[in-house]
Amino acid sequence: MKNTWRIGVAGLGTVGGGLVKFLTERPHFAPAGGTAVITAVSARDRSRQRDFDISGYEWFDDPVALASSPDVDIFVELIGGSEGPAKAAVETALRLGKPVVTANKALIAVHGRELAELAESVGAPLLFEAAVMGGTPAVKMLREAMVGDEVDAVAGILNGTCNYILTEMEQGSRPFAQVLAEAQRLGYAEADPTTDVGGFDAAHKISILAALAFGCAPHYAAAEVEGVDQVELLDIKLAGDLGYRIRLVASATRSADGVSVRVHPALAPIGHPLAETRGALNALFIEGRRIGRIFIQGPGAGSGPTAAAVAADISDVMTGARRPVFQAPAQSLQPFAKIDAAHNVGKAYLRLLVRDQPGVIAAVSETLAEVGVSIDSFLQKPVEDAGGVPIVLTTHATPEAAVLEAARRIAALPAVLAPPKMLRIARV
Amino acid sequence: MKNTWRIGVAGLGTVGGGLVKFLTERPHFAPAGGTAVITAVSARDRSRQRDFDISGYEWFDDPVALASSPDVDIFVELIGGSEGPAKAAVETALRLGKPVVTANKALIAVHGRELAELAESVGAPLLFEAAVMGGTPAVKMLREAMVGDEVDAVAGILNGTCNYILTEMEQGSRPFAQVLAEAQRLGYAEADPTTDVGGFDAAHKISILAALAFGCAPHYAAAEVEGVDQVELLDIKLAGDLGYRIRLVASATRSADGVSVRVHPALAPIGHPLAETRGALNALFIEGRRIGRIFIQGPGAGSGPTAAAVAADISDVMTGARRPVFQAPAQSLQPFAKIDAAHNVGKAYLRLLVRDQPGVIAAVSETLAEVGVSIDSFLQKPVEDAGGVPIVLTTHATPEAAVLEAARRIAALPAVLAPPKMLRIARV
Repeated sequence: MKNTWRIGVAGLGTVGGGLVKFLTERPHFAPAGGTAVITAVSARDRSRQRDFDISGYEWFDDPVALASSPDVDIFVELIGGSEGPAKAAVETALRLGKPVVTANKALIAVHGRELAELAESVGAPLLFEAAVMGGTPAVKMLREAMVGDEVDAVAGILNGTCNYILTEMEQGSRPFAQVLAEAQRLGYAEADPTTDVGGFDAAHKISILAALAFGCAPHYAAAEVEGVDQVELLDIKLAGDLGYRIRLVASATRSADGVSVRVHPALAPIGHPLAETRGALNALFIEGRRIGRIFIQGPGAGSGPTAAAVAADISDVMTGARRPVFQAPAQSLQPFAKIDAAHNVGKAYLRLLVRDQPGVIAAVSETLAEVGVSIDSFLQKPVEDAGGVPIVLTTHATPEAAVLEAARRIAALPAVLAPPKMLRIARV
Repeated sequence: MKNTWRIGVAGLGTVGGGLVKFLTERPHFAPAGGTAVITAVSARDRSRQRDFDISGYEWFDDPVALASSPDVDIFVELIGGSEGPAKAAVETALRLGKPVVTANKALIAVHGRELAELAESVGAPLLFEAAVMGGTPAVKMLREAMVGDEVDAVAGILNGTCNYILTEMEQGSRPFAQVLAEAQRLGYAEADPTTDVGGFDAAHKISILAALAFGCAPHYAAAEVEGVDQVELLDIKLAGDLGYRIRLVASATRSADGVSVRVHPALAPIGHPLAETRGALNALFIEGRRIGRIFIQGPGAGSGPTAAAVAADISDVMTGARRPVFQAPAQSLQPFAKIDAAHNVGKAYLRLLVRDQPGVIAAVSETLAEVGVSIDSFLQKPVEDAGGVPIVLTTHATPEAAVLEAARRIAALPAVLAPPKMLRIARV
């Protein structure tokens, strides 16, 4: 075993800065027997003001040059993005047989299989605990602790920004745009929030977890993605009246027909751990055939937690462990067969805006019955300035295609003022 | 790396049987590249009726002989007990340089440091994921995922039998003895339930977690242990009236003064994850300085989950990872300095039985004030056949010594019919 592992860190943002601080505070970080020390760093702007000192490290303008430096034993990629310098630098390090630790969910979700194959061909670890749930070890749980089981489903809250926004909307009765602007001001949301609020970040993460859980290749393109940007305050309030909270739920399920990977707002019953996961917290259920149901909850982002996850991966590299990047050897990983979302069976929430006139409810009920959708609960509530009467109903478990067809038919009814808003109810 | 790892299993009870079934169903169990196959087994009674086939394995009457067999590469110890054949066999395997996987919490809690030193001196892994929380990977989380952090506290529900009993008492309004008898009939509790209901099993487990969390030697003798056998149905009901549920909480906390490892019944607020952990589930909070608070919940026992944890450890052995058994090298592990429990500060619940006469409450309040204990909530409730009036109060956070002194003084008041019952309120 090596005694000293020289770490090269590319990317000195929130996570990179956290890692520099951590290893500065613990210069003898040696959980596996050797010592890890940062020797080289790279970032976009050398002269940028930072609250940590990088003068003791070799500086590289080019992360690819850092990755190939002979003075770097472990390459830590904290640049981000599925293409460009992050990918080039990771590939360079792996081709040289160097262990790579990354927090880059997009890179692993999109190119995970080919990178794993490269890593395994040279016998170098490729670790990415920090890519999912920050400091909460979801990757390690699925990759290592669940190998003695078959996992059939993982589902949870994987984007802290979206959960913060939904919680704030719910608790402060403020609309999406207002809460988003505030989150941006507080640094909880990016200037361009699309990756987070569009659900794409959560989709990257659940794609990685699906691969680990089911032994298939990450298959980001197959994920069905909706974000929180279309969640209306009115639905949060009406869902609350029905005993639910709205959360952005990322899920991956496996059946005999294939795999379904989805991200969408969903209603979780108040009291359920997903509904009780508030603010920037993340949460995950793992369902294994032998182990049963495991729930894990913790901070999903932030400098400290994410840097701690990177440090744990560095420690894992130092143990010399040899295992497949994704639980099964990369060459055997195939993209999964995608299940048509229309076949998914679940409960749904439908919100209509109707004219205040007799016979409307009868017409809606008949339309639902025509396509075989049965009603579980029904709520009509006067709302000021709504320009009509909002009606909310939840259905019993139904194929999604039937609910969507019902929504189309209801939209065409003369007394219905706007296309129904459909939200799924989380399987819990 | 080896291609085939020959597994010797000593102990064919619930967990051993689960492991045999698992590896029979997955004959090519090879998550780390090699294949694991059982070649030899040992148990007390060869001819005992079993629902799995052991005719294909070499039989050993003596687990020590199994451990030393040249046809065994990994020794799996599922006998149990801190002394006797389990310890002898584990020592034998380690002395021969063989990796050991065990589910034996008593062995690790009592002899963990010396066994770790032996294992590290010969370079053989000693893994015990199944010893704590069954299939829920608490050990891996603390040993591997938290190395990039400093953990200051772990607390949770670590004994499924006790939690089952408390939940049943609560939901069925039945007394301890009745629920215990039923649990024994259903196989949820042992014929001799002392280890579980006395809190000793949970104390073994929290001793192991404390060692992993704080980088000290397991120090079982320093744990303060109370079980659930003294929990009365009346307290469950009264705690419920005050908004709490009673759980057996195992906790380990670290401060500048030392470490406190405790197991005792405690009140958790309804809605809190510990209060919402029902039946045989286990749950654990981990508090790290950087990562923050992680919560994990899952099945804590049972054949499938625990065997899956053993299989995951076998897989870890097959990766060739070299790391200290307890996060820091065994030679550096010292038993922790124990904090005097009387210095612990927390809220408490006191239940009194008093005569129905004027001035009693004043006398109790004055006594509490004398020792500096202030009251948070107060409940007086008529209870039939109680032989007096039960009064329940909860205190603000107070050093435990003060609460105990208050209880002593209250017991001496003329109008108080029985010594007060004191329960701690969980720090949440």
